[in-house]
Amino acid sequence: MTKETTKNTLLEAGRRSFLQRGYNHSGIEAILQDAGVPKGSFYYYFESKEDFGLQVLDRFAFDYNERLDHDFHEEGLSPLRRFRQHFEVVCKQVQAHQCREGCLVGNLSQEMAAQSEVFRLRLEEIFAGWRDRYAAVLRQAQDAGELPDHVNVNELADFWLNGWQGAVLRAKAMRSPVPLKTFLRFMFEQVLQPKVVE
Amino acid sequence: MTKETTKNTLLEAGRRSFLQRGYNHSGIEAILQDAGVPKGSFYYYFESKEDFGLQVLDRFAFDYNERLDHDFHEEGLSPLRRFRQHFEVVCKQVQAHQCREGCLVGNLSQEMAAQSEVFRLRLEEIFAGWRDRYAAVLRQAQDAGELPDHVNVNELADFWLNGWQGAVLRAKAMRSPVPLKTFLRFMFEQVLQPKVVE
Repeated sequence: MTKETTKNTLLEAGRRSFLQRGYNHSGIEAILQDAGVPKGSFYYYFESKEDFGLQVLDRFAFDYNERLDHDFHEEGLSPLRRFRQHFEVVCKQVQAHQCREGCLVGNLSQEMAAQSEVFRLRLEEIFAGWRDRYAAVLRQAQDAGELPDHVNVNELADFWLNGWQGAVLRAKAMRSPVPLKTFLRFMFEQVLQPKVVE
Repeated sequence: MTKETTKNTLLEAGRRSFLQRGYNHSGIEAILQDAGVPKGSFYYYFESKEDFGLQVLDRFAFDYNERLDHDFHEEGLSPLRRFRQHFEVVCKQVQAHQCREGCLVGNLSQEMAAQSEVFRLRLEEIFAGWRDRYAAVLRQAQDAGELPDHVNVNELADFWLNGWQGAVLRAKAMRSPVPLKTFLRFMFEQVLQPKVVE
């Protein structure tokens, strides 16, 4: 493996381990073993476990932002339809993993926000980046007449992001996609219907 | 200390430790030290760390349910006013702890639901108990004409619980009560207004 490939393999194994066991409970040795990378080479790639954790998070955020930027700019669909389709696909993916994993950023916020200011600031930066992407597509929906003019899209984007994180958390506790489906139905059919918010 | 007092002191120290460090990262020795209970007596009170964790959770749920039953039955206020007041008080309490702690049940769901079926089932049972209490007071609000007849109070109660958990999570990442305040304003002023949901 090249240096870059090995590093990617380690970051990917870290993501899996953090999702399954959390950050504190993830052992470097088990991650190296899972990645098939020889013991002792970890510190060649990363300064510390914290450095590794932050890089796993950065990689996840980079990939997820690329996905949002793709999904929210898909041609041939109205802005609100693109927004809805993204969440419906995520819902299916969560279900495909038996709703076990949750969201890496949500999970690490629960686990790390009070323990490490470095992690907390990075996590909130990622959440804010998602909120901004939600707000941009909701603003397009508003410009296209899909949402009433008086809706504050920034506030709606934050409400959406937080509500979705809560639904992902409850789906994990219930081991059922029902909370995600309830969230989407409620938001699209009761909250966002122009006749409702007007 | 009597046997019962010692046990309570340990459960309280466990609650604090789980809130600060999570379950896996909480050490029995540190909990005993925090509680001022001699080393070695832990297994006199609890069968295992898991048994201890579940009892901490049971105690927390018992206390929280008592609080909900009190707040939701307060005399002199309409059902919806009682419901709102409860969340406004919780919001102030979260703020008094600098939004650092989150909710014990939400935190442990993130951490333990995928790791332990015993914990997951207990956590979901607690969530369901809260949802039922929310639904009961929302039904009273509906009977009192504070919510339109067509609102499905069970679904609304689940949506509320999950959205609130998400707001508590984001408040932890932001270290700010703004997500809680946004949630309450949005729910009470946009979602629940009879003119809005009719």
